[in-house]
Amino acid sequence: MKIERLTAESRKNLLEDLLKRSPNQYGQYEERVQVILNRVKEEKDQALFAYTEQFDHAKITAETIKVTEEEIQEAYTQVDESLLEVVRKALKNIESYHAKQMQYSWFDSKPNGTMLGQKVTALQRVGVYVPGGKAVYPSSVLMNIMPAKVAGVEEIIMTTPPGPDGKVNPTTLVAAHEAGATAVYKVGGAQAIAALAYGTESIPKVDKIVGPGNIYVALAKKAVYGHVSIDSIAGPSEILVIADETANPRFVAADLLSQAEHDELASAILVTTSEDVANAVNKEIEGFLKVLSRSEIIKKSLENYGHILLAETLEEAIETANEIASEHLEIVTKDPYQVMMKIRNAGAIFLGEYSSEPLGDYFAGPNHILPTNGTAKFFSPLSVDDFLKKSSIIAYSKEALEAVHKDIETFAEAEQLTAHANSIKVRFPED
Amino acid sequence: MKIERLTAESRKNLLEDLLKRSPNQYGQYEERVQVILNRVKEEKDQALFAYTEQFDHAKITAETIKVTEEEIQEAYTQVDESLLEVVRKALKNIESYHAKQMQYSWFDSKPNGTMLGQKVTALQRVGVYVPGGKAVYPSSVLMNIMPAKVAGVEEIIMTTPPGPDGKVNPTTLVAAHEAGATAVYKVGGAQAIAALAYGTESIPKVDKIVGPGNIYVALAKKAVYGHVSIDSIAGPSEILVIADETANPRFVAADLLSQAEHDELASAILVTTSEDVANAVNKEIEGFLKVLSRSEIIKKSLENYGHILLAETLEEAIETANEIASEHLEIVTKDPYQVMMKIRNAGAIFLGEYSSEPLGDYFAGPNHILPTNGTAKFFSPLSVDDFLKKSSIIAYSKEALEAVHKDIETFAEAEQLTAHANSIKVRFPED
Repeated sequence: MKIERLTAESRKNLLEDLLKRSPNQYGQYEERVQVILNRVKEEKDQALFAYTEQFDHAKITAETIKVTEEEIQEAYTQVDESLLEVVRKALKNIESYHAKQMQYSWFDSKPNGTMLGQKVTALQRVGVYVPGGKAVYPSSVLMNIMPAKVAGVEEIIMTTPPGPDGKVNPTTLVAAHEAGATAVYKVGGAQAIAALAYGTESIPKVDKIVGPGNIYVALAKKAVYGHVSIDSIAGPSEILVIADETANPRFVAADLLSQAEHDELASAILVTTSEDVANAVNKEIEGFLKVLSRSEIIKKSLENYGHILLAETLEEAIETANEIASEHLEIVTKDPYQVMMKIRNAGAIFLGEYSSEPLGDYFAGPNHILPTNGTAKFFSPLSVDDFLKKSSIIAYSKEALEAVHKDIETFAEAEQLTAHANSIKVRFPED
Repeated sequence: MKIERLTAESRKNLLEDLLKRSPNQYGQYEERVQVILNRVKEEKDQALFAYTEQFDHAKITAETIKVTEEEIQEAYTQVDESLLEVVRKALKNIESYHAKQMQYSWFDSKPNGTMLGQKVTALQRVGVYVPGGKAVYPSSVLMNIMPAKVAGVEEIIMTTPPGPDGKVNPTTLVAAHEAGATAVYKVGGAQAIAALAYGTESIPKVDKIVGPGNIYVALAKKAVYGHVSIDSIAGPSEILVIADETANPRFVAADLLSQAEHDELASAILVTTSEDVANAVNKEIEGFLKVLSRSEIIKKSLENYGHILLAETLEEAIETANEIASEHLEIVTKDPYQVMMKIRNAGAIFLGEYSSEPLGDYFAGPNHILPTNGTAKFFSPLSVDDFLKKSSIIAYSKEALEAVHKDIETFAEAEQLTAHANSIKVRFPED
């Protein structure tokens, strides 16, 4: 990779470059997605069967669309025992981290006769989308389902495209069952999102849809937003590493490549204060590229969106990281905790040289579904919050309302909402 | 109003009827909104000036687009002293309620050398949209700005359309200044949303846009979602009252009308177990309609979306309320607290006969920007949460990673992400 000196100019170009990967730029697919959504809304199951035949080359029917208990049991026989064991260990960590995010209702009553509160309720039914295709990511299944489970969602409906044999990948099924999905349906793409948003004869309408997917899935989720809730719109994966002269170049190189392997739009950026580290990382990358199985993808994503940037100071590196707002941020410096305190924008932050990014993808416990493409400036990792909602509670006694009723009437009348004012006045006709 | 017996059939029809008011049904305006968004993205300030002349019949320039300190001071001379006093009292209540919603970073370190955490950060810059037109709602200004302020947002940028004289309504300005807006710009409609989402020479790009608006504003917000964050998409206002035989029909009638006066799409629904209360409320409504200034609007909204429903049991009333998921829910029964515990879906819940809905609109403290049109099933009231975001924190010691490194490698290899596995392996080459 070329090693670039960080300047205001290079920073601006870099940011613009990265934003080009945004799923918000794919307007040309919107119409095709809308056609799919409308057809599923109208024809329901029939549309799902037709699209699954067209896109997934699989025949499904009202009898086979839902994964059966037998299919789940069969899947268990096909999954490696050692993987199952790791899945169970990871689930324990994921559950324990997410349990700390739980929020509870609160109520606050005052001697003046007022009670205010906030009631926290879990969503009742949610949909989890799991992509199909050659790549199978059981870890994503765990990460999508577990926060809903911890929040107390009663029904967790998963959809995923079947293979041409009409079967769901066994590892996906086992992961879903272990994490606690209540039903799995064999549908993928925009048609699955439509089914979850509007409901069909087979698939019940949900309150919220989460889970990553291709551009059709992302656009479909965006289109149904408001009708149901959705999680953030996922873009290509990213890593940014802040490293000083103490960093181990071999570790840094390996971590950059771990994100670059995701796809050709993935971005891997090193920002370092040390020219020696920059050169050494570059050399290690070359070495790894000779041996890694996905080196063709890695080469392309490094070419497109890979950068090694030299910062004058650690402050400058931190500022750059905050501007880019990377999905994953590794801090490999003498005192990573101090640097972390100055980070405003990042999906997940990894501290020190033994907190490699894949540790977070698979095992540590925090969610690996993270805001991408600069959206860490305003979005959060998928969490228990995503599956909870709140209602405000207001209770005033007669005395408490009486003490302030003129104030409320004044305010309502200033807004010319006289029926609002009237609803207070009727309660104190003698005043 | 007609008094209807609640049945499965009437409930289904009612729900379908209410959903027709959804802002998601206005596809025909989408193209016009997109034209506005694109033009502002391209021409920036120039487009804002042109649209403001076209839609608001006001001339604004780079010099006058931002409200000046002098304009704010002038506004104070035009606002009634007693209203200002009430605004300040309300603000105190709003601030104190929202302060209870604040969330803080947490970190959890274990003796095994792991530290996991969640860092909470306020958004840096947010946009607040305030509608213009004849109606002026200073209460909305307070409710939009205060949660951002409590969260610790540094820059709170407000936009609102100017009158034909190029001025912003003085009450709006004073409310914005009291609540803590850091800048106010004279732009409205979809063009204001575009300016906040993309930035122009005058108006800085924000991270999130909140605030109600007409259908153009709602569609523009939906279109820029993902590029920035937005709050829920606001639909017409709603109230549902659950009343038993203990309810005061005069109070209930007045409260129903207080929401019906908002606009012709507003919905006011009484669900009662008492036929006497149903009849008495109906009679009181007739009386009020003769004296209320906005009775023409009220009549239309009652005709369109007003209902008096008779429930067999309180349980049935509760179920109906949960299905409708009303923006405002009043519980006027013998034991409103018990009923409240069974409510899953509602924006704000008002308990007992002295907790009239306008108390919440203006004064009590909880936010009056609430999920409408059934979205209380998955959205929450506007809150401090809306202006905070989270980053996960992961730190493992060498020993902690060493103890689990094989597990992570197994998982990564099962997903065929060999560069992920490699990033763990390089750290333990001797194993």
